[in-house]
Amino acid sequence: MSIAEAGEFGLIARIVARLGDGRADVLGPGDDAAVVAAPDGRAVASTDVLVEGRHFRRDWSSAADVGHRAAAANLADIAAMGATPTGLLVALCVPTDLDVAWAEELAEGLAAESALVGATVVGGDMSSSPTLTIAVTALGDLGGRAPVLRSGAQPGDVVALAGRTGYAAAGYTVLSRGFRTPKLLVEAYRRPAVPYVQGPAAAQLGATSMIDVSDGLLQDLGHVATASVVGIDIRRDAFEVPDQMRDAASALGVDPYVWLLAGGDDHALAATFPAGVTLPPQWRVVGSVHEGTGVTVDRKPWQGGTGWDHFR
Amino acid sequence: MSIAEAGEFGLIARIVARLGDGRADVLGPGDDAAVVAAPDGRAVASTDVLVEGRHFRRDWSSAADVGHRAAAANLADIAAMGATPTGLLVALCVPTDLDVAWAEELAEGLAAESALVGATVVGGDMSSSPTLTIAVTALGDLGGRAPVLRSGAQPGDVVALAGRTGYAAAGYTVLSRGFRTPKLLVEAYRRPAVPYVQGPAAAQLGATSMIDVSDGLLQDLGHVATASVVGIDIRRDAFEVPDQMRDAASALGVDPYVWLLAGGDDHALAATFPAGVTLPPQWRVVGSVHEGTGVTVDRKPWQGGTGWDHFR
Repeated sequence: MSIAEAGEFGLIARIVARLGDGRADVLGPGDDAAVVAAPDGRAVASTDVLVEGRHFRRDWSSAADVGHRAAAANLADIAAMGATPTGLLVALCVPTDLDVAWAEELAEGLAAESALVGATVVGGDMSSSPTLTIAVTALGDLGGRAPVLRSGAQPGDVVALAGRTGYAAAGYTVLSRGFRTPKLLVEAYRRPAVPYVQGPAAAQLGATSMIDVSDGLLQDLGHVATASVVGIDIRRDAFEVPDQMRDAASALGVDPYVWLLAGGDDHALAATFPAGVTLPPQWRVVGSVHEGTGVTVDRKPWQGGTGWDHFR
Repeated sequence: MSIAEAGEFGLIARIVARLGDGRADVLGPGDDAAVVAAPDGRAVASTDVLVEGRHFRRDWSSAADVGHRAAAANLADIAAMGATPTGLLVALCVPTDLDVAWAEELAEGLAAESALVGATVVGGDMSSSPTLTIAVTALGDLGGRAPVLRSGAQPGDVVALAGRTGYAAAGYTVLSRGFRTPKLLVEAYRRPAVPYVQGPAAAQLGATSMIDVSDGLLQDLGHVATASVVGIDIRRDAFEVPDQMRDAASALGVDPYVWLLAGGDDHALAATFPAGVTLPPQWRVVGSVHEGTGVTVDRKPWQGGTGWDHFR
């Protein structure tokens, strides 16, 4: 059945049915607006939009994959403030000839990724559009803590990373060259594995700054360096190249460090901590903060490209 | 200058510069997420998306008009819960050849409409897209009150309206027939005049249900009737046809009551109150709630069409 046949309210009913039950303290879809618990007295809020052809392709990713990724991009932003996600709102723009099943599976993916952190889809809007577009807003709760900003890094701090980098970029390159394997990389592109709980954990460990690595580690640390008015140096030998990534890089003629250091979409969390902090095993130190500006790799400018500009 | 020439971060800087200063209790644009005050311990949240060609045309509306309208559609949803808007997040998808000035003026319109209620644009995201699309999420605060839902209307209640209906639909019809006047109607389509403060006021007056009239009064009251499991009857003589609307309707061969009763986009607030309530002059009684189902006009089914389905 096409979306035109289902009609706006028919489609909304089908999607809402797939979102699962909300928590008792939440007013979910069906009214003019949702009501989300904000026990902290503040709500953390972030918006990310995915556009077909720009951020995803329907022949590379299932609808559920796109749902997982759209939710993950937003939930990671909430985690990167040191907050716990609570609710998601989804604006969905769809061609009228799209199969209703695609939208239903998208909703299932959004709900399943949200459920990983105990959040639910609480509302949204729908429109027809020639361009399939998914704009997600995530809300979160700081649990009484100060938000961890990009601007707090101090000279002498260590730079640490939770989660993977380079996997999604490698998967993207593999797919764009017409391959479907290695599965590890392709799956990483389709559904990022985000270390959400490490966001609030880093805040509790005293992180001085934090960012979600969405555009590439060096570019995103560049935002931290600029906001904090510091320089950041990354150690190349802190990054191991996994076997499957090495094999793929070799087969495709790519430097795997371009993926690791400049590849986006894995939504790792990068944070700075005071030197001497004892970090749990989910975090590994990959560099340090010094007086100065910009981001270097082994004290030298990086020549491999720094990441993604959505308009170039 | 085109958006491609400005680049993603250049465009973001230009837009943020036009948003005005946020309030002291808010962390605005520039980090992974915004932080919005939610003194009530709950955040009200609503998302609406506008798609070029579907919700607006650039030859009919200026960028500032589109900004006003995109903000108004969301702020009205917050008001219709009985809440006061606090912050807006904006996902903007733009063709790369769009002039940067258009995006800047859009931002000014969003900021100006938000300022009417003391809210600010706190964050957003941007992407290139072949289809110009603006998805806005508004957040709001209930000030300790219960949200006013669609489901609370009771038989015996009166139905009252704050704000205008039919003006925007008349303006849309005028524009779609190639005219640019009457200015009153065309301007109403371009920039709705929403009675935002009447949302929290209605909550304090004991409104049993409330909805934002975005798709047409009869269709939107239909949602109230369904959610409340009641019937609603509207009195046609409660609606006066303004002179300019009467003249336009006559010239265009349209029944003006189709605009008044089924036209959307003015974002009036429709609410039900217990019989005997004394309403301030901003509210006028237009009907009543009874046992039964559906919405009637003078106790008869309405034959003029009930409103908007975004997929038909």
